[in-house]
Amino acid sequence: MVSLAQSILGAPGAQQRRAIAKAITLLESTRGDHRTQADALLTDLLPHTGTSFRLGISGVPGVGKSTFIEALGLALIAQGHRVAVLAIDPSSSVSGGSILGDKTRMEHLSVHPQAYIRPSPASGTLGGVAAKTREAMLVCEAAGYDIVIVETVGVGQSETAVSGMTDMFVLLQLPNAGDDLQAIKKGVMELADLVVINKADIDPDAATRAQAQITSALRILGQHGRADHAHHDESQWHPQVLQLSALKGQGIDRFWQAVTRFRQLQEANGKLAARRRHQSLDWMWERIESGLRQAFRQHAGVKSLLPQLTKEVEQGRIAASTAARQLLQAMQQK
Amino acid sequence: MVSLAQSILGAPGAQQRRAIAKAITLLESTRGDHRTQADALLTDLLPHTGTSFRLGISGVPGVGKSTFIEALGLALIAQGHRVAVLAIDPSSSVSGGSILGDKTRMEHLSVHPQAYIRPSPASGTLGGVAAKTREAMLVCEAAGYDIVIVETVGVGQSETAVSGMTDMFVLLQLPNAGDDLQAIKKGVMELADLVVINKADIDPDAATRAQAQITSALRILGQHGRADHAHHDESQWHPQVLQLSALKGQGIDRFWQAVTRFRQLQEANGKLAARRRHQSLDWMWERIESGLRQAFRQHAGVKSLLPQLTKEVEQGRIAASTAARQLLQAMQQK
Repeated sequence: MVSLAQSILGAPGAQQRRAIAKAITLLESTRGDHRTQADALLTDLLPHTGTSFRLGISGVPGVGKSTFIEALGLALIAQGHRVAVLAIDPSSSVSGGSILGDKTRMEHLSVHPQAYIRPSPASGTLGGVAAKTREAMLVCEAAGYDIVIVETVGVGQSETAVSGMTDMFVLLQLPNAGDDLQAIKKGVMELADLVVINKADIDPDAATRAQAQITSALRILGQHGRADHAHHDESQWHPQVLQLSALKGQGIDRFWQAVTRFRQLQEANGKLAARRRHQSLDWMWERIESGLRQAFRQHAGVKSLLPQLTKEVEQGRIAASTAARQLLQAMQQK
Repeated sequence: MVSLAQSILGAPGAQQRRAIAKAITLLESTRGDHRTQADALLTDLLPHTGTSFRLGISGVPGVGKSTFIEALGLALIAQGHRVAVLAIDPSSSVSGGSILGDKTRMEHLSVHPQAYIRPSPASGTLGGVAAKTREAMLVCEAAGYDIVIVETVGVGQSETAVSGMTDMFVLLQLPNAGDDLQAIKKGVMELADLVVINKADIDPDAATRAQAQITSALRILGQHGRADHAHHDESQWHPQVLQLSALKGQGIDRFWQAVTRFRQLQEANGKLAARRRHQSLDWMWERIESGLRQAFRQHAGVKSLLPQLTKEVEQGRIAASTAARQLLQAMQQK
């Protein structure tokens, strides 16, 4: 009998696609025995991952992410790539359904045999959604998708999560002044390796102004934070701003040239490998802390004390640190 | 025999001062029996806390924090207040000694009978340093210091820690363009209830330019984040920018008028009480998560697995999520 891992690694077309879907469903399951199988599967697949390029894409609703990803995906497939598109939308469980990675919004890409599109997992926390997407990314890589795109809409800290699992983080902006300050404020601009001003054809003057503003902001942010920017070292990547129109298909080539240049530099100077090592360790600790919090909240002794202690802390009748110590002690007793 | 709590609450002058010092030393101890005594002490003192005003002050080295706090502290004492000054400096254990809250830098305030100055605890992590400072703050409040100033130099996330334990957070800036962008980038500007441009006498034109820039930045940051800014509601506080010269004692009065206005508004609109409730709960959870991490790292099963699994995750031989689950399982088995 052919194992699930074998089907993912080598089955033809539709059969492989079914195996990927089955694997991702397994990864998303909360059942204990499924989790054990999923871990075994990941360990089998892991030697076949890591050769893909992982591209993170974020932007506010209306910026044109789906149109951009469809245009980019089709262009990449025409060059011989296989493209997987995954999504992180922590709001999906609240809003009752994710629009991200929605197949109906990428009508040509979604039916293409060389593309695999998966919407955001619908579970609750950002950490949980991100964890499942990260594992789904490994499955797609093992299946031979050499470009994996992870998109998010920028709810809460989802940009940080996407930037923390990809090789390059691209921020899509509209040609609007003021959007850039919002992105700086949220710390998203700093995460961006490349900023794309989409819909540049609608108002070329505004797009050019936005490009100048964001270029200047990136320079200032870079100056303070990173010493390597001072001398414009050619072996290092310097965040850039591009204009394009995804709807008209203008600028997609130039975008991919920039991505390719980024990848070459980061591979040559060792930063791509270092980024992945750090991401893996950060990820391990993020999952550990999430697991510790969950075990704490589910502990019977904690459950019985927490409501009362929370009230006493709020009312100032017990010091927060004392309450924390009492709860931690309750957890240690059996 | 008079208890430590009684001495803190009611002993005269030097005797109370010794009791405070003894209590803070107890709070900073890592011995288990000391911790039990410290918790009992905090619970005794807690009903006598909460009536002080807690003022957080941050700024880069050289901005003139000590000069400012000395001038402010002496002015407040002249008005009949009792002033405690505490410091958070997570770098002190690295640099081999804290300059923050250094008594030699506040020569008049430090010897004043109505002032109590305590340098930063010298322990390692920001969380640990902040926890001890927060508890020391409660001791000072119980001892009748009605103004508690907590200062920090802005290493890592120390501004967030100070803002998370005070009623009002004040950011000291130099009259330099560009400093404001750095503060926006770090997310510190957003924490500020009041921005003070110190050393304004040295270059009045630069100070006025900086004031205009920061005022504009605060307005833009406020517009996006807080709907209540749109109508300039008079019952709400709107972050302000002041110029002063601490060295020449110019502007200290106006600064304290702004603080008093802030306090009146926040008490009237209920935000002061709400902020303290949230701070206490955040603090409880921060301490719980820190305790969980510590218990995890000290667990024998985890200790024996962690180095090998860390290496395998770094080398891509095991998925980060799988490693995390193995470590969490190791912790649950006894």
